[in-house]
Order: sequence, then C-alpha cells, then structure tokens
Amino acid sequence: MSDAERTRPVWHPRPQPVADPSLPSRVRVYEVGPRDGLQAEPEILPADVKIELCRRLYASGLGAVELTSFVPARWIPQLADAEEVVGEVEVPEGARGVALVPNVRGLERALAAGVREVSVVVSATETFAQANLNTTLAGALDRAREVIAAASVEGVPVRGYLSMSFGDPWEGSVPIERVADLAAELHGAGAGTVALSDTIGTGTPGHVIEAVERTVAAGVSRERIALHLHDTYGQALGNVQAALRVGITEFDSSTGGLGRCPFAKGATGNLATEDLVWLLHGLGIETGVDLESLVRTSQWMSRTLGRPIASRVATALTAAGVS
Amino acid sequence: MSDAERTRPVWHPRPQPVADPSLPSRVRVYEVGPRDGLQAEPEILPADVKIELCRRLYASGLGAVELTSFVPARWIPQLADAEEVVGEVEVPEGARGVALVPNVRGLERALAAGVREVSVVVSATETFAQANLNTTLAGALDRAREVIAAASVEGVPVRGYLSMSFGDPWEGSVPIERVADLAAELHGAGAGTVALSDTIGTGTPGHVIEAVERTVAAGVSRERIALHLHDTYGQALGNVQAALRVGITEFDSSTGGLGRCPFAKGATGNLATEDLVWLLHGLGIETGVDLESLVRTSQWMSRTLGRPIASRVATALTAAGVS
Repeated sequence: MSDAERTRPVWHPRPQPVADPSLPSRVRVYEVGPRDGLQAEPEILPADVKIELCRRLYASGLGAVELTSFVPARWIPQLADAEEVVGEVEVPEGARGVALVPNVRGLERALAAGVREVSVVVSATETFAQANLNTTLAGALDRAREVIAAASVEGVPVRGYLSMSFGDPWEGSVPIERVADLAAELHGAGAGTVALSDTIGTGTPGHVIEAVERTVAAGVSRERIALHLHDTYGQALGNVQAALRVGITEFDSSTGGLGRCPFAKGATGNLATEDLVWLLHGLGIETGVDLESLVRTSQWMSRTLGRPIASRVATALTAAGVS
Repeated sequence: MSDAERTRPVWHPRPQPVADPSLPSRVRVYEVGPRDGLQAEPEILPADVKIELCRRLYASGLGAVELTSFVPARWIPQLADAEEVVGEVEVPEGARGVALVPNVRGLERALAAGVREVSVVVSATETFAQANLNTTLAGALDRAREVIAAASVEGVPVRGYLSMSFGDPWEGSVPIERVADLAAELHGAGAGTVALSDTIGTGTPGHVIEAVERTVAAGVSRERIALHLHDTYGQALGNVQAALRVGITEFDSSTGGLGRCPFAKGATGNLATEDLVWLLHGLGIETGVDLESLVRTSQWMSRTLGRPIASRVATALTAAGVS
C-alpha cells in the first residue's frame, strides 16, 4: 500500500452517536454568523453575499438566524445594509429571523424593515459597557428596558445578550452573583431569552454550571437561558456539554466560525456551528441541521473571504473530501 | 477611548476556577509532543531542538513526557535520533520519560539507551493494523505481548495505545465492545495503562463514557485507563470532561498542538496541552503545570517550525501579550 493510499480516507467521517440519557433530546442552534460573525470580519461584504449566506443557513435546517444589526453604519460599517438584507431574506415558516438593535431608534428601523424578533446587548461589567456600548452598565440596562417596552407594544420578542458573563479583558474575573442578578433583571424587564455570553471565551465547565444554577435561582427558568460561547480558549464545546447537563437547550454559534476575537488578534471567536452540531449529533441530540450542507456554506464563505475556515469540523471534512 | 485602546486587553487572561466536586481533584497530563507531535510534523528537527523541547516541558511541571520512538528511521525519519535524545534528556526525579517501541528490537534499543518506561501501539481495527502497523490486528497484539514480556523481565512498565478506538478512516464506526475487549486483553497481557486513542478525533462525550464503562466492565480499573484524544473535530475537551465524570485521571496532549492529523491534510491533530490545562485549572483540578511556561515553549517551537501555534489557548494568550 502506497503512502498516498494509506493516508487517503475512504469514508466521510461522522460521529458514532451514543446518547447520554441525562441530556436533553433536542437543542436549538441559534446561528449568529451573519451578524456577530460578519461584524467582526475586517472585510465589508456586498449585501447579496449576506443574503445568499442567510438563505443557505435556513436551507441547511437552521431554525434561528441572527440576520444583521440595525446599528449606525459609522459604528459597524460591515452591517450598514441591514434594511436590504432583511428585505431580501425570506424567513421560512416557523423559523426565526432576528436582528440586533442597539436602542429604540434601531428598533424602529428594524420594525420598519419587517423584523419580527430583535436582540439587545447589555454588559456584566462596567468597563465593557463603557468601552463597547458607550454607556454605563446601568445605562445599557435602561436602554434595553426601553427597547423591550417598545418591542412589547408591537408584540415583538426580545432576546438579551449579557456580555462578558464569564470574564472581561479589562477587569478579569466577573462575579457570578452579578451575572445572575443582571440576567434576572433583563428577564424581569421582558427579555424572553437571556443569552449568558462568554464574549472572550475564558469560561470553563464548572463556571458555566454555577452561572446557570445561580441564574435559575435568581428567577430565570432554564428554558429561558441560552449560552453564547466563544471558542477563543478552545473551551466552548466543553461548556456546551456542561450546560446540557443542567438543562440548557439553546446555543449560539457561527457557521464556519465566522468572526474573530476582537480582543485577541488572530484568535478564534464564535463557536463554529459545525463543531457544535457534531457534538450534538454525536450525543444523539436532534438539531434539524444538515452538517454537510453547513460545511459547503463554509467552503463558499472561505473562498469569498479568502481565508481559511475557522471550524475544525469543516476543515477536517473538507480534507476528507466533503464538497 | 480610541479603537486601539478599546481592543487592547490589560489583563493576562486566565480561567476563573469553579470546581465541580463530582470530578477528580488531580489529573496527570501525559505529554506526547516530542513523539506523537514531532513524528507528524513534515520538518525533521535537529536533536538539540528536541532535547531543549523535552527539557522545557519538564521545567514547566509536566510529570510524564513521551520523549521519542525507537522505530526504524526508514519508517519515521523525524525520530531517527532516538538514542541521542534519550541520552541527553535528564528525566527529573519522580517524573516519567517514556519511549515508544514498535517491537522487541525497538525495546532493546530503548533499554540500551536507558529508557525506564515504554509504550506500544495496538489497533482496534484490522485496516489500521494493516495500513500503519504492517501487520494484522491479532499480529499487533502478539507483538505487544512480546514487548510486554521482555520489558517485564527488566522491570520496565509498558503503556499500551489502542489506536482507532473511536472511529477509523477506512472502516468508519468501531464497535465499542471490541474496544473494551482489546483494552482488557492488552491490560491482561501486562500493560500498566491502556490509552484509549481517538486517533482521528471523531469521538463525542457519550461515546467516551460508554467506552470507558465497558472497558471497566471488561476488567480494567479506571486508574489504569488513559485517554489519548485528537482535536480534529474540536471534540477533545468535551471528551476530557466526559472522561473526568467517569473517573479518568490521565490524559495525553501535545504542547502547542504539535503534530497534525495524518488522515486529513491541514486538520488539527493532538489535543493541545495548554487547552487541556486551561480546562483542568478552570475546574480547580491540579496538574502541577505552569501554563504560561508552556505557552512560551509553544512560541519558541512556532518560530522554530515556522508555522502558527495550533493551541487555541497559546494563540490567544500570545495575542494577549504573554511572552
């Protein structure tokens, strides 16, 4: 057998599913590539590429996609075409098409464009609120309350991100009690889901379990808690597994690992959807997602952006011949 | 605040430890970079670089390092200098310095060079045995038995790898009962530790738990089972967490993620030691390892090999200013 024959796999790898009966049987994958991913890519893509990306993501079976952000173009030029993207992407029956809004003005733009679910960002640390949201921690929460109230009038649900829930690049550690209290405040204000967000990716499994349990103790039920994990320190899937053990069933991820870490040049950002789906399918957990279809989308985005795919699963399956 | 100020972290990130009392309090990290890592790197490094690598790894607190392999140079030219490396590396008091041996001839070379612990490889699949070990599945086991018997005469312990325990690039799925039975045979023959090896990285947590439990049921106690995980599909740390839950306390990894996946060009190979240590320290589990010292070793190896570090933790900490 030649070396080439030896190293050429003849099988399209897939996980060998073994269920863990203590875990949930179905999970919602909340795709953030078009928003959280693309806003962190240095390149500004044309609207038709973004529209095609969203179309492909829904076609792969994803039931929730964060499509864009109605943030002023001077803040995030990558997403300046929010109206056009939302106007052109057809959200399938029963699926969610979400847009991030920074304030009531952004909400008005989103509603005018036809958006039926929005997300808001608050911060678990004072420093991040000041550096990235241009307000205080309390100010960010007030702004979220205004958005939630205005959205509620229109019957539009709001998903709240609690950034820096597991560590902050300026402050270091973040008290878990504060995270739980802020999550409960955000939920109490009307956010239907609170996404505990590991914005810099430093969290580990015991930390995740403790944060979830304290948030539940503070009054947010498990089905109202999502996890938004970054893979900067390679911990995201371990943290997903920990969260599954304590009953969490909604996880954010980005196809192909789109987006980078804004706090560490060259480092990984969002958890890749393919890597998440591999884990879940390996555990026998249903997602409704077609993995190879996602990989093909990542291959296409990789060609479009001219850079390697950040998903380990997509990279390995591409090497194994999936195309 | 300028953009540069906003994105510059002022903190050397580290995990915020939260113990999970159901997990072990201490874990052995078994470093395979100098052997499994370097044998898979295309570049052949000079012996003095390998010696310096091993010296640095022990100096970082690692208590077990697989130093090299006494395999004929025509098979693995990267490790043709096994005698020189073993002769020059001083194994600290109480630490393990292991060498892989393919057969009794290799064992003799290793013993002559002063090695006091060896490892052997057997296969959970017929195809891998034929393609990579140039024998049959049964033949590989016989060869391991011969090595174990000869090593036993000299009072030298043997660690046995069971390759392709969680998937095979030619056969696909691998029956878990077969893995458990082979692990028990290898242990019964005298291998002190059996490393269930996810050589292509396709395993997921339920699969790992099932493989460990069946191996225990087949007669191998938990403290005799190690896990050798590759991160090709990003699953390694999730699998470590699963294994910790069922009482496994020895894990293989490679500093900087040295080594590549021989079955998928461009894909990740060994679990990176830094990523493993981040997880363990985040869980409050003692390892005795100094993380930043490992990162500096990976930075040095990255300059030496002229390629980026494969460890996510080392990449992120480098970006955060660790040097």
